[in-house]
Amino acid sequence: MVRFAVLGAGRIGQVHAGAIASVKGAKLVAVADPVEAAAQALRTEYGCDIRTIDQIAASDDVDATVICTPTSTHADLIEQFCRAGKAVFCEKPIDLNLARVRDCLRVVEETNGTLMVGFNRRFDPDFAALRAAIDAGQIGTVEMVTLTSRDPAPPHYDYFPTSGGIFRDMTIHDFDVARWMLGEEVETVQAAASVLTDPKIGEWGDYDSVNVILKTASGKQATITNSRRASYGYDQRIEVHGALGAASARNTHTANIEIATASGYQRPPLLDFFMTRYKTAYAAEIAAFVETLTQGMPAHPTGHDGMMALALAEAAVKSVAEVRVVAMSEILG
Amino acid sequence: MVRFAVLGAGRIGQVHAGAIASVKGAKLVAVADPVEAAAQALRTEYGCDIRTIDQIAASDDVDATVICTPTSTHADLIEQFCRAGKAVFCEKPIDLNLARVRDCLRVVEETNGTLMVGFNRRFDPDFAALRAAIDAGQIGTVEMVTLTSRDPAPPHYDYFPTSGGIFRDMTIHDFDVARWMLGEEVETVQAAASVLTDPKIGEWGDYDSVNVILKTASGKQATITNSRRASYGYDQRIEVHGALGAASARNTHTANIEIATASGYQRPPLLDFFMTRYKTAYAAEIAAFVETLTQGMPAHPTGHDGMMALALAEAAVKSVAEVRVVAMSEILG
Amino acid sequence: MVRFAVLGAGRIGQVHAGAIASVKGAKLVAVADPVEAAAQALRTEYGCDIRTIDQIAASDDVDATVICTPTSTHADLIEQFCRAGKAVFCEKPIDLNLARVRDCLRVVEETNGTLMVGFNRRFDPDFAALRAAIDAGQIGTVEMVTLTSRDPAPPHYDYFPTSGGIFRDMTIHDFDVARWMLGEEVETVQAAASVLTDPKIGEWGDYDSVNVILKTASGKQATITNSRRASYGYDQRIEVHGALGAASARNTHTANIEIATASGYQRPPLLDFFMTRYKTAYAAEIAAFVETLTQGMPAHPTGHDGMMALALAEAAVKSVAEVRVVAMSEILG
Amino acid sequence: MVRFAVLGAGRIGQVHAGAIASVKGAKLVAVADPVEAAAQALRTEYGCDIRTIDQIAASDDVDATVICTPTSTHADLIEQFCRAGKAVFCEKPIDLNLARVRDCLRVVEETNGTLMVGFNRRFDPDFAALRAAIDAGQIGTVEMVTLTSRDPAPPHYDYFPTSGGIFRDMTIHDFDVARWMLGEEVETVQAAASVLTDPKIGEWGDYDSVNVILKTASGKQATITNSRRASYGYDQRIEVHGALGAASARNTHTANIEIATASGYQRPPLLDFFMTRYKTAYAAEIAAFVETLTQGMPAHPTGHDGMMALALAEAAVKSVAEVRVVAMSEILG
Repeated sequence: MVRFAVLGAGRIGQVHAGAIASVKGAKLVAVADPVEAAAQALRTEYGCDIRTIDQIAASDDVDATVICTPTSTHADLIEQFCRAGKAVFCEKPIDLNLARVRDCLRVVEETNGTLMVGFNRRFDPDFAALRAAIDAGQIGTVEMVTLTSRDPAPPHYDYFPTSGGIFRDMTIHDFDVARWMLGEEVETVQAAASVLTDPKIGEWGDYDSVNVILKTASGKQATITNSRRASYGYDQRIEVHGALGAASARNTHTANIEIATASGYQRPPLLDFFMTRYKTAYAAEIAAFVETLTQGMPAHPTGHDGMMALALAEAAVKSVAEVRVVAMSEILG
Repeated sequence: MVRFAVLGAGRIGQVHAGAIASVKGAKLVAVADPVEAAAQALRTEYGCDIRTIDQIAASDDVDATVICTPTSTHADLIEQFCRAGKAVFCEKPIDLNLARVRDCLRVVEETNGTLMVGFNRRFDPDFAALRAAIDAGQIGTVEMVTLTSRDPAPPHYDYFPTSGGIFRDMTIHDFDVARWMLGEEVETVQAAASVLTDPKIGEWGDYDSVNVILKTASGKQATITNSRRASYGYDQRIEVHGALGAASARNTHTANIEIATASGYQRPPLLDFFMTRYKTAYAAEIAAFVETLTQGMPAHPTGHDGMMALALAEAAVKSVAEVRVVAMSEILG
Repeated sequence: MVRFAVLGAGRIGQVHAGAIASVKGAKLVAVADPVEAAAQALRTEYGCDIRTIDQIAASDDVDATVICTPTSTHADLIEQFCRAGKAVFCEKPIDLNLARVRDCLRVVEETNGTLMVGFNRRFDPDFAALRAAIDAGQIGTVEMVTLTSRDPAPPHYDYFPTSGGIFRDMTIHDFDVARWMLGEEVETVQAAASVLTDPKIGEWGDYDSVNVILKTASGKQATITNSRRASYGYDQRIEVHGALGAASARNTHTANIEIATASGYQRPPLLDFFMTRYKTAYAAEIAAFVETLTQGMPAHPTGHDGMMALALAEAAVKSVAEVRVVAMSEILG
Repeated sequence: MVRFAVLGAGRIGQVHAGAIASVKGAKLVAVADPVEAAAQALRTEYGCDIRTIDQIAASDDVDATVICTPTSTHADLIEQFCRAGKAVFCEKPIDLNLARVRDCLRVVEETNGTLMVGFNRRFDPDFAALRAAIDAGQIGTVEMVTLTSRDPAPPHYDYFPTSGGIFRDMTIHDFDVARWMLGEEVETVQAAASVLTDPKIGEWGDYDSVNVILKTASGKQATITNSRRASYGYDQRIEVHGALGAASARNTHTANIEIATASGYQRPPLLDFFMTRYKTAYAAEIAAFVETLTQGMPAHPTGHDGMMALALAEAAVKSVAEVRVVAMSEILG
């Protein structure tokens, strides 16, 4: 039995608490949140304790923590809990600053810590089935990856200043999926970015519509197209082209029905919220974490995966700012 | 080169004239129609002669005729042209009366005539691909066939009195497709029929909504569902279930696009006219006729196929009238 | 909080226990099963008591029971627990004998009992969305319903003798869905039945491949096609045709991906087990039961729904046995 | 009646000759080809004359020419026939050299000539329906365009040296479609290119796998992904994302059927040859040319369209060669 504490009882903390409750071999022992009502809500629902972060770090009955606090606290908490000997699952990103991420990963390594980074899409059953088909050799050697991610709507205005920008906040998921599908590290990054949906987004120096091309040493390529607007729901697609064929994962609609009338054939729009769309993925993610802990296996995606996705985001930011192709060696040194 | 005459220059005669013009190895020599404007239109378009039916029967430069005249004249014309030594392609049905069909087929046999009956659906590329997949053993032994045919709208009121009723006019195509897909003769027929779209149809003693179950000696079954109304176009589907799997042919939309908006994902409606939907089939049908003539092979579908489809329609009419299961032996003697 | 006891800890009892555990406002208090290991397993998993059926009937801390015992015990248990003042959810069917069902429903009525019958398909999110679209008027007045249900494989041989035959065991779900979609009672039933997949099934006097046509007083029709064999998974489809259009619910695949190779475009097969395919439906069903209890509303589907589906099965059995169309008035008196 | 001459009786010349024969109001009068057998084949099939190019330029009975000769002759022939007062339809590209294209278009202008460039994809019924849906406002203002084009196999080795490279030969179609869909001129181009399918292609200094990002002044973006290899057929897709929704045109399969077996649900591969895939488009293209000539309207796509697509290809070549973002102003001056 893996005994969990959840740090941060906001939206995503609630998702992970629910996942822990539903996974066999996992148990929610404690929650920490400065907002007492939020912590109380989890206690009522799951019968867990409310403790402070330091109490949790010192608790004998806690094996693992799930970090769902604001991004700026992630790296510190990872270090604190690795030092305290707890296994750590941390929501992405580790930090918005690449140097800080590196320092943090050094602490993880020195403490021989266990760190899993929350790239939930790797645990989506359809995406995982896609990767499995590729692993089974069904499309041969991977050549080109095409990722489409569009959010139904932009985040709240007050989130923008701390989001780190679209590449670090939104595209970061696609960077991770691209690495996962390419199976090879990216050498060059080039991106284009526009403000098309809301001029206010431009005022913060951010973008809402971007395209990125990634290229590896062997010439494999991935493209990513992102928008902060999609009237028809949460658009999440992966397409991989290989020497022997192509594989694609399709969107998820609110219902699997179709209505035919004089206007045509209509299917319902897509699920329009990440927590609904990736509900199964969030549960599978925690289950995978529990399984690796139980078996004493290394957790995936790793801290390195978290760092590499952020580095790709840095490169994309630089590519847009300087209107040029950026080599990853410039970012990673 | 097969030299053709078309008897009847109405809607379907025009379709076949166009098909003859487009098929290599076929040539339209003459057309006959009591309506001079109709015959003239074909002459203008294809440069063929206008002749009377008797002139065509006596013409040395005509090898084959395509009979597109009203149903009540079909059997007489088949007999006349078989006696005249011309190959005959006749639109379905041979006649609305089964005894008359039998007499006619006897003449075809006695004259050693060549007769192909116009069940155009057998030449639709998708349906033909379905049959080919079955022949290739992809779904194993056929067990159950499900046919859906819905017309966008009922025929004109003035057509009803001579149509022979929905089973002989519309379902007859499905009866032929059912036989084609089952690969075995039907033993029993049971049907249900309603008037749901227009009470006027009921006043003529006809129906607009019917379901039929066919069963063969070995227990294979086919169901047919028909409606004279379909807001979304010309609904034409075949599904065949076998021991190893199932095969289906899908509908044809006016364009292969999809629009996603806040209301959902919309594809255009279906092609809504039999001459558009089966345009390729009509050309392939004439091409097949030309090929069999050229190779001296027997034409398919045969006069027997035409008779059997009509016999199934008779059985369905009787089943509805007497509210009972009808054995084909009652119809065929 | 609705406090539950589950009677019968077999496969379907485990499903319902899991559903109770996952539904807010519901709590599993006790389980009864003559097989001690089965009962123990539920106790271990959900921390509930093990009690005898009579102890549960006498328990003050039980509000509702879920009957998952063998069919032959259903009617007796419904009566016992209605008399004990417990709300009852009973797996279909109430009994295989229509007269017994009627007697049982009379007891439910006399005791002013609450009875919900487990027709899980009404709670499938896709089927419910289909019904909602129809209720919203999207396809106008319902005219024709087409139901396809095929099982991946027949039940174990030892289940056949007590199954009541394919119509009472398998088609009964389609009979309920047909009534739900037609929105009008059926007047006549006609069916065809064959043994195509395994001659052994015929030796028990049962069938594996059936088609049924149902017709209502106003002429609405439904067809049902069933097979005990489907290589590609659990085939479960509903199609409803109305005056303004058609609505269809599609199958559920094991993953929403597609692989394109030189052989073509391939999607994975369907979910192939009713408990996987209808997992969400089972949870929604218990949630609906809890909601009606909490709100003091009558539960749906009712005992009457259970009886009517069985009566349609009786009519289909008679139709096949006597090779004729059967009026529901013959069955219902 | 528009009287045509076809220059060049190779593969594409045959396609256009067939299109002319099938279009009402068009007539094939003459063909020119140095390979006599090729010219003879067209004469036999369509009953046209064989003439030299100069004879055609001097012919009174020729209104329009279709240029299907090798690329290097296009610009000269356009000039010759514009000077001869014939309307000109020319296969893409006008020339591989941008300066030469400009000179040629100047002659077209000075002679007040009529020039239509053969970007056949604009006449594909599905793509045209997509553009019509956008024009009808169904997805609002266009924001992002995603184009996927993959060839089933690379061209013959001997074609590579004169092809102009993948961007000028293959991507040029996508550049035209991108401009057509964006509805706004491109300002910057960035591309990535690899050799993944056949090292021989790299030896000629060409690529087989490319991605391009185009960006307009207002920030609209288009991505193009191309490969010279696709095991599953001729992959041709357009997706347009707008403020109110997204529109997509799907691929065309060899048949519209699906086979379900224990391995899954399989549809046939795609049409795998551009002349089959775009057969309807080629006929519609000539019909559009005839219509504009008949109505005295300007022909589309114009010589300017031809030049702009080539300029985008130049920019992409430069972007890859210099590993940087290229401004169209650098190319167009």
